[in-house]
Amino acid sequence: MNYFEESLKVHEEHKGKIEVVSKLKVQTREDLSIAYTPGVAEPCKKIHENKDDVYKYTAKGNLVAVVTDGTAVLGLGDIGPEAGLPVMEGKAILFKEFAGVDAFPIALASKDPDEIVQAVKLIAPGFGGINLEDISAPRCFEIEERLKKELDIPVFHDDQHGTAVVVLSGVINALKIVHKNIEDIKVVVNGAGAAGTAIAKLLLSLGVKNLIACDKVGILYDGIENVDDAKKALAKISNPNKIKGSLSDALVGADVFIGVSAPGILKTEMVKSMNEDAIVFAMANPVPEIMPDEAMKAGVKVIGTGRSDFPNQINNVLAFPGIFRGALDVRAKEINEEMKIAAAYAIADFVKEEELSPENVIPSALDKNIAKVVAEAVAKAARETGVARI
Amino acid sequence: MNYFEESLKVHEEHKGKIEVVSKLKVQTREDLSIAYTPGVAEPCKKIHENKDDVYKYTAKGNLVAVVTDGTAVLGLGDIGPEAGLPVMEGKAILFKEFAGVDAFPIALASKDPDEIVQAVKLIAPGFGGINLEDISAPRCFEIEERLKKELDIPVFHDDQHGTAVVVLSGVINALKIVHKNIEDIKVVVNGAGAAGTAIAKLLLSLGVKNLIACDKVGILYDGIENVDDAKKALAKISNPNKIKGSLSDALVGADVFIGVSAPGILKTEMVKSMNEDAIVFAMANPVPEIMPDEAMKAGVKVIGTGRSDFPNQINNVLAFPGIFRGALDVRAKEINEEMKIAAAYAIADFVKEEELSPENVIPSALDKNIAKVVAEAVAKAARETGVARI
Repeated sequence: MNYFEESLKVHEEHKGKIEVVSKLKVQTREDLSIAYTPGVAEPCKKIHENKDDVYKYTAKGNLVAVVTDGTAVLGLGDIGPEAGLPVMEGKAILFKEFAGVDAFPIALASKDPDEIVQAVKLIAPGFGGINLEDISAPRCFEIEERLKKELDIPVFHDDQHGTAVVVLSGVINALKIVHKNIEDIKVVVNGAGAAGTAIAKLLLSLGVKNLIACDKVGILYDGIENVDDAKKALAKISNPNKIKGSLSDALVGADVFIGVSAPGILKTEMVKSMNEDAIVFAMANPVPEIMPDEAMKAGVKVIGTGRSDFPNQINNVLAFPGIFRGALDVRAKEINEEMKIAAAYAIADFVKEEELSPENVIPSALDKNIAKVVAEAVAKAARETGVARI
Repeated sequence: MNYFEESLKVHEEHKGKIEVVSKLKVQTREDLSIAYTPGVAEPCKKIHENKDDVYKYTAKGNLVAVVTDGTAVLGLGDIGPEAGLPVMEGKAILFKEFAGVDAFPIALASKDPDEIVQAVKLIAPGFGGINLEDISAPRCFEIEERLKKELDIPVFHDDQHGTAVVVLSGVINALKIVHKNIEDIKVVVNGAGAAGTAIAKLLLSLGVKNLIACDKVGILYDGIENVDDAKKALAKISNPNKIKGSLSDALVGADVFIGVSAPGILKTEMVKSMNEDAIVFAMANPVPEIMPDEAMKAGVKVIGTGRSDFPNQINNVLAFPGIFRGALDVRAKEINEEMKIAAAYAIADFVKEEELSPENVIPSALDKNIAKVVAEAVAKAARETGVARI
């Protein structure tokens, strides 16, 4: 099947993918009087008396805004808010189908971080959470940081953290196969954009000591000049030995390569310079940093990609529905590192020990039970870290 | 039934009234590849090439934002955006149930007109229309005017224009009963807030020559000082004889009283000073400006109220679903006077000649066929006035 043609056909036939429907029947005069005036005045009054009752009487507690400015949509780049809508609608239906979360696309007509932050703050009363989506780096870092500080509902940039959580789950399981400890491994992350930065930070949170981030300019090191502030900040917390050079230099003796960069960038010789039982997550799409068969030939033990036609697909749908489900269930104030790590372990543990193999470190994205176990783990972590409100 | 208690129960049981659902099934890997990546890239690309294709491939063309700041919710006043949500959700489900329009509540955390205008402009890419709701006067006038100028999708403040359209339909039919022409009648509108101002303007558009608006300060006349700018503007275009005084002074010899003011304000003596076969629309809620039985005793020929337990209920649900349905169907750039007047005539004409009586000048709000005929009339008017894009 040609997915592109078929997708175009389906989108046109249905005029998009989402609709807003009523949970109540509105047929009789009585129905109207209960759902609307005069009856509706009563929940309004209750919420006015106690603002928290908005979670009791409205859809807010189960509603996530999928917010974009259309600047980094898929691999298509800055195509604008309108052109980003099909992705946002897609995200919304995945939220609903995988975790029962109501999600609604908000496509913003601005690329200015101040305006984006302001708009999201202004629409926040109706939402229980904010999922930022396809906003380009480094603007996405500032926007997320500011919104996290200023809002009392979870704010989560899926391109960063959703990807990071799934990669982390893959790393956790791959390390079981090669019998290495997370504290001992050397990790190279290639591509220090939104996803790469978040992956690096989450791995550091989890205990990785020797992590090197590379970008187009080569290895990031403390003191590097010709990169943006976000990359300088990443350089400061990584690369403890202050190594300089190119990706090939970084990879010598590395245990794990994580690519969120460009097709074909990881060469056979580089893989051969890596440590024994190397682990590779090559997520450039649709053509990965190295093709799985080439990687295996060069000695890689476990490889994952972003593609559904190879084993170990890194697919965010493994993470975001369950993460928000868990956060909303306990009315979490935020989605913190502990909650993300709990999600990663829940995804990793979903692959049973007897089923674990180099071709199966990441579970299938289609299994709708995953969101449930992720939600439970995330809710538990929220309670344990004191950010749960119920 | 106690609608207030029942409403509270139903809202809590369902956690609000709306949900966002998928029009597509997402079960298999193929489904995912069509609804989401990689297939979804294709509609994105098409919209990027031609922005108008957003109407072809996304839900935008059928989506209306129900926008409030919570400053004038029902009769409850300024209760805030969260407390306004049950009304906005109610509006959203009425849009869907009566006209198949997808509507989504946007409750804004600001009372500042600049911020409200800015927020609505920023979220506009995802919506086919904007329904402003329960925003207090006179701020609502400025907000609507600015948004109408700056956006290329219909912007409609229902508290103003929805009410005005339904009142106008009632006036049209009541005049048939009393055999008077709209050009000859004297109309008094009491209450120059959002609804009153819109009603006055629409009646003037339709050809009423002698219209007097009253407010708490009494009759509005050209040159009046102690009122806001919106009321000064209304004074300029009404009251051609520059009468001064109180509501009683205005009503002498009037053919029509329209009240959007306060309970019990219209006294028997005032009604008696009106012209023969007087028409009264007394919409203060829940207690009207005059009770129907008292009005009839005083000589009123036709009376309508906002209540469903009296004849001739002025209910906005007669207007807004069909108006937006019609505007969206032809992708109208705006909802203009001609479209509103067409809606009013469609609602009036829905009452067949043989069924027309003093107790039946306005059709039942529950008849879902009304939205259809209103939509057709509105679409036709949009085409005729050149604001339709398809």
